[in-house]
Amino acid sequence: MTRMRRSQARARRSGCPIGIALDSVGDPWTLLVVRDLMFKGATAFHDFQHAGEGIATNVLSDRLARLEAAGIVDKAPDPADARRHVYRLTAKGMDLGPVLVELVLWAARHERTDAPAAVVKAMRHDRDAFLAEVRAGWRAARRKAR
Amino acid sequence: MTRMRRSQARARRSGCPIGIALDSVGDPWTLLVVRDLMFKGATAFHDFQHAGEGIATNVLSDRLARLEAAGIVDKAPDPADARRHVYRLTAKGMDLGPVLVELVLWAARHERTDAPAAVVKAMRHDRDAFLAEVRAGWRAARRKAR
Repeated sequence: MTRMRRSQARARRSGCPIGIALDSVGDPWTLLVVRDLMFKGATAFHDFQHAGEGIATNVLSDRLARLEAAGIVDKAPDPADARRHVYRLTAKGMDLGPVLVELVLWAARHERTDAPAAVVKAMRHDRDAFLAEVRAGWRAARRKAR
Repeated sequence: MTRMRRSQARARRSGCPIGIALDSVGDPWTLLVVRDLMFKGATAFHDFQHAGEGIATNVLSDRLARLEAAGIVDKAPDPADARRHVYRLTAKGMDLGPVLVELVLWAARHERTDAPAAVVKAMRHDRDAFLAEVRAGWRAARRKAR
């Protein structure tokens, strides 16, 4: 653990919190994986593969491993099939919810997207309630997994 | 313009607003450039080069050009030296403020950062006021530049 902390510190580009956050989640795929975990019910490798953007298998493996190393994702054996894994967001991963919501609101305001108007409205007018509901679903799934 | 819209649409990985946002800002450098424009008073090419993370010249040129193409950054000739340019956030670029603030809050909560405690506190306890102040500074700079 100490060794990992030290090597993470070495890899950092600066002490800036934005830079540090982007060292973990600042690439074109990582936050899509977090999105699938948070909003789309993805838990298995193939769930991410079929999430829509066509992520390559090797990229997906790499991003899941990095998310696990960063403490954003937990990996456990699938109780139904020990050759497979179940991926879940940690509390640290769930705390990325506001970042994802702000990305949705920005894109919905400035780009043409498929975001359902009702969801965007819920995010914009009561962001905290929206995120609390997502978090309640996450807690329930974690309890069930134990 | 129509051609650019069409080619942007082709380059998109999905209609998901998060995916679309990340097509514009989802790489390890782009949001650092936006950060420098929003919070560090960067306006010239060399300002970004000296912002701390050691961005390579070719990467910086590429990211500034992409930010301009995405309508996030405006580029104008420097009135003091016509061979140089002044870069500024557009209104669309300023609307990334909440995304950056949430990245700061996430990193400040979960990582060891150099973020000044007073700034983090201001962001956490009155995010809207913090962003309004940043926006007022941006407006004043734009007025001065005209």
